[in-house]
Amino acid sequence: MSDNPNVLWIMADQLRFDYLSCYGHPHLHTPHIDALAARGVRFTNAYVQSPVCGPSRMSAYTGRYVRSHGSTWNGMPLRVGEPTLGDHLREAGARAVLVGKTHMTADAEGMAWLGIDPGSDIGVRVSECGFEPFERDDGLHPDSPRQRWSAYDDYLVAHGYTSDNPWEDFANSGLDTDGNLLSAWLLKNSRLAANIPEEHSETAYMTNRAMDFMQSAMQGDAPWVCHLSYIKPHWPYIVPAPYHDMYDQSHIIPPVRSDAERDTDHPLMRAYLDARVCKSFSRDHVREHVIPAYMGLIKQLDDNLGRLFAWMDAKGLTENTIIAVTSDHGDYMGDHWMGDKDFYHQMAVKVPLVIADPRPQADGTRGTASDALVEMIDLAPTFMHALGCRAKPHVIEGRDLTPLLHGQDGFSRNYVISEHDYHWSEMARSLNVPQEDARTVMIFDGRWKYVRCEGFRPVLFDLATDPSELTDLGASTDPAHDAVRIRMDAALLSWSTRHHSRITATPAVLAGQKTAAESGILIGFWDEGEYKDATGKAFDSLQPHGRP
Amino acid sequence: MSDNPNVLWIMADQLRFDYLSCYGHPHLHTPHIDALAARGVRFTNAYVQSPVCGPSRMSAYTGRYVRSHGSTWNGMPLRVGEPTLGDHLREAGARAVLVGKTHMTADAEGMAWLGIDPGSDIGVRVSECGFEPFERDDGLHPDSPRQRWSAYDDYLVAHGYTSDNPWEDFANSGLDTDGNLLSAWLLKNSRLAANIPEEHSETAYMTNRAMDFMQSAMQGDAPWVCHLSYIKPHWPYIVPAPYHDMYDQSHIIPPVRSDAERDTDHPLMRAYLDARVCKSFSRDHVREHVIPAYMGLIKQLDDNLGRLFAWMDAKGLTENTIIAVTSDHGDYMGDHWMGDKDFYHQMAVKVPLVIADPRPQADGTRGTASDALVEMIDLAPTFMHALGCRAKPHVIEGRDLTPLLHGQDGFSRNYVISEHDYHWSEMARSLNVPQEDARTVMIFDGRWKYVRCEGFRPVLFDLATDPSELTDLGASTDPAHDAVRIRMDAALLSWSTRHHSRITATPAVLAGQKTAAESGILIGFWDEGEYKDATGKAFDSLQPHGRP
Repeated sequence: MSDNPNVLWIMADQLRFDYLSCYGHPHLHTPHIDALAARGVRFTNAYVQSPVCGPSRMSAYTGRYVRSHGSTWNGMPLRVGEPTLGDHLREAGARAVLVGKTHMTADAEGMAWLGIDPGSDIGVRVSECGFEPFERDDGLHPDSPRQRWSAYDDYLVAHGYTSDNPWEDFANSGLDTDGNLLSAWLLKNSRLAANIPEEHSETAYMTNRAMDFMQSAMQGDAPWVCHLSYIKPHWPYIVPAPYHDMYDQSHIIPPVRSDAERDTDHPLMRAYLDARVCKSFSRDHVREHVIPAYMGLIKQLDDNLGRLFAWMDAKGLTENTIIAVTSDHGDYMGDHWMGDKDFYHQMAVKVPLVIADPRPQADGTRGTASDALVEMIDLAPTFMHALGCRAKPHVIEGRDLTPLLHGQDGFSRNYVISEHDYHWSEMARSLNVPQEDARTVMIFDGRWKYVRCEGFRPVLFDLATDPSELTDLGASTDPAHDAVRIRMDAALLSWSTRHHSRITATPAVLAGQKTAAESGILIGFWDEGEYKDATGKAFDSLQPHGRP
Repeated sequence: MSDNPNVLWIMADQLRFDYLSCYGHPHLHTPHIDALAARGVRFTNAYVQSPVCGPSRMSAYTGRYVRSHGSTWNGMPLRVGEPTLGDHLREAGARAVLVGKTHMTADAEGMAWLGIDPGSDIGVRVSECGFEPFERDDGLHPDSPRQRWSAYDDYLVAHGYTSDNPWEDFANSGLDTDGNLLSAWLLKNSRLAANIPEEHSETAYMTNRAMDFMQSAMQGDAPWVCHLSYIKPHWPYIVPAPYHDMYDQSHIIPPVRSDAERDTDHPLMRAYLDARVCKSFSRDHVREHVIPAYMGLIKQLDDNLGRLFAWMDAKGLTENTIIAVTSDHGDYMGDHWMGDKDFYHQMAVKVPLVIADPRPQADGTRGTASDALVEMIDLAPTFMHALGCRAKPHVIEGRDLTPLLHGQDGFSRNYVISEHDYHWSEMARSLNVPQEDARTVMIFDGRWKYVRCEGFRPVLFDLATDPSELTDLGASTDPAHDAVRIRMDAALLSWSTRHHSRITATPAVLAGQKTAAESGILIGFWDEGEYKDATGKAFDSLQPHGRP
């Protein structure tokens, strides 16, 4: 076994932390992910840096906070020059390979400005946030003209699923009893079986493509990180047979919500509750239709991972591959009278994270859970370490998890951070919040979850006394809560004034910053004697050029 | 006169705001800058974004806070992809031309990584922070091997000033009575005449080079911003005859300092006072030697500007050229028992700023002073506006000063910000502050100046009752001061959590963010009726591809 293993980094999209049996779901059994947890470490306090796809992923792929990389919302290009995991791996001779979704938008304006051809090797990697795109598919093709079809669309047509939008008409629609298409864009159709056999679904297809990549990589020597990135269980919520019919109302865990929450006096929370998606998921019949489909999608994903892991076993890949399973954010599913994601309750901002490290150093932690405060940006430096990259503390803001995987000291974090830019949203429109001010930031120290809301009072939960986050203490007059708010603001200020953009201060640059006396640039020396007293050198020794 | 004038942006280095007669110096008469103020606006509250050359200038040239561009200290490369004034001007068909100093360090690592040839047109502009380098000279050549000589070194040799380091041996040294060289790196030599006639000094040379540029630009049609950037009155403090002998002890304004300041209990302030340069400039004999030279350098600069302005008059350039005079930071000169710059008292962080706009819209403001809170980052958007560039609020953090120049409403600012990264310093070493934590940030609202010091208590001055900033209220137990500190921390938190890095959110990107219903991506719609109620459109109208 090599000291530098490969990494299979599996990411589901919109997968709640608590919809896996290893995280305690009573009815949704996910034996393959559970088995991975049994030979790895299961993290119980893993948080994403934004509760929405694009910015969360840009943080995952750069190892940097949203504040730092600047891609604060879906579709906002990651700027040219923002260093990614792939860039760091390439320096060490390793590959970062994409199979699936990133939600990356290329910075076409930035490339044009710097003269980078988007079709060149460098242009492609800049456009794919540092990855080598073995397969790129963001998985949402609501109106996809044929020239912009994904490889999956082509695959469907090649297998006889003929349509102008095979993604939508087969993989993301059901059929009524007369054979008419019923779109899964409408929640009422979630309980139907998808109009596609499971083996041609998106989840199965992308699993196959990961195998294709690993098979091809076995021909080469370069170590790799393969990012296998599934679109599901993200909406449209629909799953092929037999998974559409595995779960029913009896398997739905009760909603986490209280009537008192609907009476919030917080203008932003009020606006969330008034947003259509939240009102929709507050209705029991929506939950009852959608959650069984969501559970089916997760069950299907787990089965596909079982298929993938068995294949890796057969190919001898398991023993030299670190496998991580995680998600880019969760899904409210009606909890707290909310739908989709976009805020910071646990089911939205906390994600499952299981990492199985085959190296013997990890033998002592197999099957354990870690309650360390972990951020999604920690994966990049962890993988970099595993593949032998040099550390880049001036760029990477995440922290290497290797000590936790290997049962060693050396990892610590006092709080996790997540950010959200809601300028695009119904909330911003209904509250008339300027684009620049439509921002919130969460800080969580393991007990207190504090959400700073620009222009509004903060939101505060005490997870020690209120683990379900039902009581907002943001306006509490209890002095103890005031003290918490002050402490959290101070921690946020310390964090937000950090040098998030100081990325050119490489160790070489810092080492090159000679003292004034060393550089020959002398500030404040009166005479030769003072110079000699301070430096131990004669003043004339500074002038190697000699005198004319 | 064209609607789009040119801009001559003159920057002195280390020029205190109060060492010009138009800003009230009683003995240092600067009639040419005063005359510019008489036909323009003199800003009395202009602040730099860092009290040190490099980061202050990178803010000036990008229109962005230090936090945003990330070049937090001298020699820290400005990252590839950080947009500059020059880039914005080029888009509008205008030129940004450099004559003199920028303190820019090229991001060689970033260019290599993005495949940008440093010698290409794009590589040169990336290396010169967006400028077209007509002449680049940062003005400090303590040990300059011949192959790295500046054009000024070559100029000196061509004029007979032969040496292995002509910059140092002629322009920055004096002679003793025996004709031996005495280096101006040592303060005791400041009163000597520089070993060069005035007309071959750095200030005169760079003035000539600005004329050379403007002469050449008259052949072309493209409007321009010419950044004429002098190294002086920055140290080494030495000036050619007759300026070396114009001022003596009787012309030195008294130091701004109190004995009580030396008893500070603030660890960081204590460390500043213990730093060599501060101890040096706390000695009266140092002040008495250096200040007359510093005044002579400013007088020489003013005379050269007089020569330049007369030449521009003769060439007919004045009537179509906005002229701005400013500095990148000040100089303590022993005030507050400190030397050089690097902190936030007025003489370090506040700079002179005079802008004369020849357009008739500015006729109403000629000869007036503005006490608006202005930042150095405001110049870039002001010049962009003048030259017809589109506004870029997603990138540019400064605010267009045109309303102030034209006597109109539309400019407002509640506070100015300045930042400092002291990781390199004696203070960081003596206090053992980690590189990441060696940072301070100043916020000033026109009355209260508050300095947040990571790891230490804040520093606070009330300029209404203590305009000389002699009493640090950072530890005051007066509840009124506590309220100010809380308000300032809140303002800093709002500022520091802004989207400083969200630079790809162009108006086009934001406009392209369709609502879910417009994009065909539907979240939370139960059925066709709900969709129609919400959007006014039939659900089927979303499927232009038709049904199979």
